Amino acid sequence: MANEEMFLSGALNGWKSNIERADKMFSNFTPEQLLKEVAPGKNRLIYLWGHLTAVHDAMLPLLDFGPRLHPEFDVPFISNPDKAVPSMPSTEEVRKSWNDVNRKLSEGFAGLRTEDWLQKHTAVSDEDFAKEPLRNRFAILLSRTNHLSYHLGQAALNSK
Amino acid sequence: MANEEMFLSGALNGWKSNIERADKMFSNFTPEQLLKEVAPGKNRLIYLWGHLTAVHDAMLPLLDFGPRLHPEFDVPFISNPDKAVPSMPSTEEVRKSWNDVNRKLSEGFAGLRTEDWLQKHTAVSDEDFAKEPLRNRFAILLSRTNHLSYHLGQAALNSK
Repeated sequence: MANEEMFLSGALNGWKSNIERADKMFSNFTPEQLLKEVAPGKNRLIYLWGHLTAVHDAMLPLLDFGPRLHPEFDVPFISNPDKAVPSMPSTEEVRKSWNDVNRKLSEGFAGLRTEDWLQKHTAVSDEDFAKEPLRNRFAILLSRTNHLSYHLGQAALNSK
Repeated sequence: MANEEMFLSGALNGWKSNIERADKMFSNFTPEQLLKEVAPGKNRLIYLWGHLTAVHDAMLPLLDFGPRLHPEFDVPFISNPDKAVPSMPSTEEVRKSWNDVNRKLSEGFAGLRTEDWLQKHTAVSDEDFAKEPLRNRFAILLSRTNHLSYHLGQAALNSK
């Protein structure tokens, strides 16, 4: 394996292991537990799960894998804080969307060549990318893995 | 910049930005706030800060940068849960150790060539590394960045 493939594989392993950790954690919560706040006055677990789903869904156009599967998740889970939107997707809708979005991402990952990861993501202009070549797909992979860990740490406060 | 350097630079940027985020977050807490639990019955902020310091300190021998600076952090911050050890380092000791350890790590990072990141870390045997070549220094960098994000998500519940 070439050096560049080794670096990429390490990062893809990190993504996968965090997704598996999240799968396990969220699927172990009962629907009642999912309505609990991670700490008093803070986000509920279902909000974190929906938020992660929405952020991962937004990676699809950002990595040029196609349109979002669930743009309707933005209003309840990104542009508004928890408990601000009266109607939100059910637990089952969040679970299914989470799985669909991550499956679609992993298909997209599998279709990229190593060097494709160093191409710009779609939210940066050609001009800016010429100046800042690290604003590439790989940066999105790493930052979203970290974002997932960040919220897993919060969700873990309620597990066990 | 060669492709392999681009991948490495992206990951080092992720480490740096998380360290900066942690610096900012922990230094903004007052000594009284640092004694607060992140959620009822959970770890105190000072414990998280000491725990992160101890885990980063342990990266020094793991990446072959030299011996640990603060092995005495293990008992209060790794091998025991919060509030189990009667005497623990003061806030000022944690703050100073956190800074010293991260500075030493960043000096170590600066001394590595790109390909050195793909060498085995010191906790894996030659035999196992031959079978699992991704158990390299780079994997430690990524997993510790994720570990930092995980606990930052918890600490953030108490900020602002």
